[in-house]
Amino acid sequence: MKQNQNILIIGAGLCGSLLALRLAQRGYNVNVYESRPDLRVTDISAGRSINLALSDRGFKALRLAGVENKAREICIPMKGRLMHDTQGNTFTSNYSGRDNEFINSISRGDLNGMLLTEADKYDNLTIHFNTECESVDLDTNIVHFVNRKTKKKFKVEADVIFGTDGAGSELRKSYFLQRKFLFSFSQNFLTHGYKELEIPAAAEGSHQISKDYLHIWPRGEYMLIALPNLDGSFTVTLFLGHEEGEYNFKDLDSEDKIKAFFQEQFPDALALIPNIAEEFENNPTGPLGTIKCSPWYYKGNTLILGDAAHAVVPFYGQGMNASFEDVAVLDGIIDKHEGNWETIFKTYESVRKADADAIGELAEENYYEMRDHVANPIFKKKRQLEIQLEKHFPEQYFSKYSMVTFNENIGYHEAMTKGRAQDKAILNMIADNEINLNDDLSVLLKIVQEKTNDIIDDDNIAKTMHH
Amino acid sequence: MKQNQNILIIGAGLCGSLLALRLAQRGYNVNVYESRPDLRVTDISAGRSINLALSDRGFKALRLAGVENKAREICIPMKGRLMHDTQGNTFTSNYSGRDNEFINSISRGDLNGMLLTEADKYDNLTIHFNTECESVDLDTNIVHFVNRKTKKKFKVEADVIFGTDGAGSELRKSYFLQRKFLFSFSQNFLTHGYKELEIPAAAEGSHQISKDYLHIWPRGEYMLIALPNLDGSFTVTLFLGHEEGEYNFKDLDSEDKIKAFFQEQFPDALALIPNIAEEFENNPTGPLGTIKCSPWYYKGNTLILGDAAHAVVPFYGQGMNASFEDVAVLDGIIDKHEGNWETIFKTYESVRKADADAIGELAEENYYEMRDHVANPIFKKKRQLEIQLEKHFPEQYFSKYSMVTFNENIGYHEAMTKGRAQDKAILNMIADNEINLNDDLSVLLKIVQEKTNDIIDDDNIAKTMHH
Repeated sequence: MKQNQNILIIGAGLCGSLLALRLAQRGYNVNVYESRPDLRVTDISAGRSINLALSDRGFKALRLAGVENKAREICIPMKGRLMHDTQGNTFTSNYSGRDNEFINSISRGDLNGMLLTEADKYDNLTIHFNTECESVDLDTNIVHFVNRKTKKKFKVEADVIFGTDGAGSELRKSYFLQRKFLFSFSQNFLTHGYKELEIPAAAEGSHQISKDYLHIWPRGEYMLIALPNLDGSFTVTLFLGHEEGEYNFKDLDSEDKIKAFFQEQFPDALALIPNIAEEFENNPTGPLGTIKCSPWYYKGNTLILGDAAHAVVPFYGQGMNASFEDVAVLDGIIDKHEGNWETIFKTYESVRKADADAIGELAEENYYEMRDHVANPIFKKKRQLEIQLEKHFPEQYFSKYSMVTFNENIGYHEAMTKGRAQDKAILNMIADNEINLNDDLSVLLKIVQEKTNDIIDDDNIAKTMHH
Repeated sequence: MKQNQNILIIGAGLCGSLLALRLAQRGYNVNVYESRPDLRVTDISAGRSINLALSDRGFKALRLAGVENKAREICIPMKGRLMHDTQGNTFTSNYSGRDNEFINSISRGDLNGMLLTEADKYDNLTIHFNTECESVDLDTNIVHFVNRKTKKKFKVEADVIFGTDGAGSELRKSYFLQRKFLFSFSQNFLTHGYKELEIPAAAEGSHQISKDYLHIWPRGEYMLIALPNLDGSFTVTLFLGHEEGEYNFKDLDSEDKIKAFFQEQFPDALALIPNIAEEFENNPTGPLGTIKCSPWYYKGNTLILGDAAHAVVPFYGQGMNASFEDVAVLDGIIDKHEGNWETIFKTYESVRKADADAIGELAEENYYEMRDHVANPIFKKKRQLEIQLEKHFPEQYFSKYSMVTFNENIGYHEAMTKGRAQDKAILNMIADNEINLNDDLSVLLKIVQEKTNDIIDDDNIAKTMHH
């Protein structure tokens, strides 16, 4: 029965290859079509960030497919943040008050390659490279492709089609353009963009700065970050306004200007990036966009997952984790309704949509928190209090960041709702001098919990008006 | 100078004809291209709601163009809401506690016709009917049209191009498709749609139910409303789920089902709609969508206004008023920067965007308030308190509805922010028994104001975290 069902997956990126692996493990006949060449044999940059932060939601999904340990082997644990000021001074900022909570730097290419190699082990799974999807005919369930090498066009019919083809998804475009149903859609771009640079490895292949941290140079209107790679290098990302602000990508159009900007704002980073002007010119300036849409499925025929359904900005380090979690959530629903794809897709969206929307919002918000990390004294006090609460009440207190990043059994929407209320409670009590941070921690915990619950209750009463 | 500048306006609907009139009054050479025939000589339905609610923001903009009184002549004042229960019982619900605050039913066609006739008085303004815009070339400032009668295609170059071509705007589509810049865009559809029906005039041309009210049949999951027309008829609109709920448009597919539904839920309305089954079948089921986007302009060349930039659902009765207000706001900015269109457009969006976003949100939220109008006892108490506060402190207290509808000098965003805080304050104090509604009104006013300010302050402190 299952073997008779032909599953077609568009896109063999991180989400598509994990989905393919999982569906092959379930016994389906799976064909995956990827527009790019095989990244294990061709040196390609996917045009997207080179390394990513892998955390607990991602691991949970990888575990389901039996590849968690293979992923851990290529991870570099980042135990905390290391903040750099304009004088080159550094200080650490933990992710949580619990010792075992950290995130991991991982190469997108290495992780994707591992998943493809695992997928290759299944006879009922075939990956076709250099085949670019041009559109999906929703009426006939036929996908139109072009072979990127031969330029030949061809089409494939399938029983079920999954679109894991990223933020520029062709399946999503077909939803938008074919107007078979009312399709709610949004793309929201920040006024800031990003550019990747490189801190090369030291001569002997070691890291020039500590590889045990996510490095951050927060500067309010802009920000630099660096994540370690296994080869000793760091991938550095500059987040900066496209056209606005005192400094912006448009104005930084000469070697002198670029170096002067880095010398003033990121002198210690500048000393480690030898080819900065060249890289600045050659590497593209990327947009920072959030995509939301609904419905994600059409009948029992097609479904979009991952960035295709909900691309997010990178500031919570959750884009990949959310995409992997999609696969795990879908898998749990297939367990219950196997054989009825329309019910599976409908249930999946009803369960998953609020969480996908929430991580999109959280990621946009977190940009302000990251780049203003050191500036605001009230934020600092709040962070100190939360770290202490987590340290002393590890089973009872979880900051918003901890709920989002380390609590894979809480949905993003719940983490957002509770996390925002906690933030609001603590910030207001500090601002209004309603709490004494030197009080006993168990007293402080109780006050924060009560105030948080009050805020949630008040919001719920107000919300009955709008729902 | 001005006469040398050729202004091209796409769309001679409500927003486009008012904008054309105002720019002609300023001395520009204006050409307006409208895809439909002249509605003054052809009996057409624009495919959209037949009558609308005109209120203070709309009047302010009409006044600017000297046509307020001409509009008032064709208005039917609706002094309040008249609610109908399932037994056919009715009760009134005022819009505010101030006597002079009411909204007006007006025919879209009559109002549009009046504006076109006014526009015809200007030699420097020409309206071209039956000319449909197919696209706008943003590089060359050339608009491509097709004549709907002759099918001939032609193009027109202009110095400045305005898109007032409604929710399906071709200029906006050109922004989206030509990718000259990062274009944030969202279209959000409710799960409900609408269908228009008619209560005909009585034999002698009089109204069969009182014309002095906006009639509402609120039923929680769905809702019927009726607005009076000058000819004695009422335009009735049913808001109902497309596919969801106990009753929905998809399932109401036979005369028996339609009549049974109305007999159960709207028996008094059913008795007044003789051709209900025929109308149900012939009249389209319309979608309810909100559109937001940014930027609205490209260089100093093009600008979208009205529904083209920010289509809203009809539940606040503000769509037309917001579009007219666009023209007034733009006009005020032209005063300051005349001659520099890029500065005008940039300033206009920076001033107007938050207000346009706000009315989009307010309109979506108000659906829940309207259709649950009678159900929730806390809402009822809140409304009674607010009416009393407005009656006794007419200069000091304004409900959210009053700020949005009757206070044209407060922007939508401010009205939303303050109005939501007031709603939250009152609802929570009632729910928590924190106020005694029998207290002296001046005491109650003070309590509400203080609690409202607390909520606004708390939100502001929490917001510093997210900007």
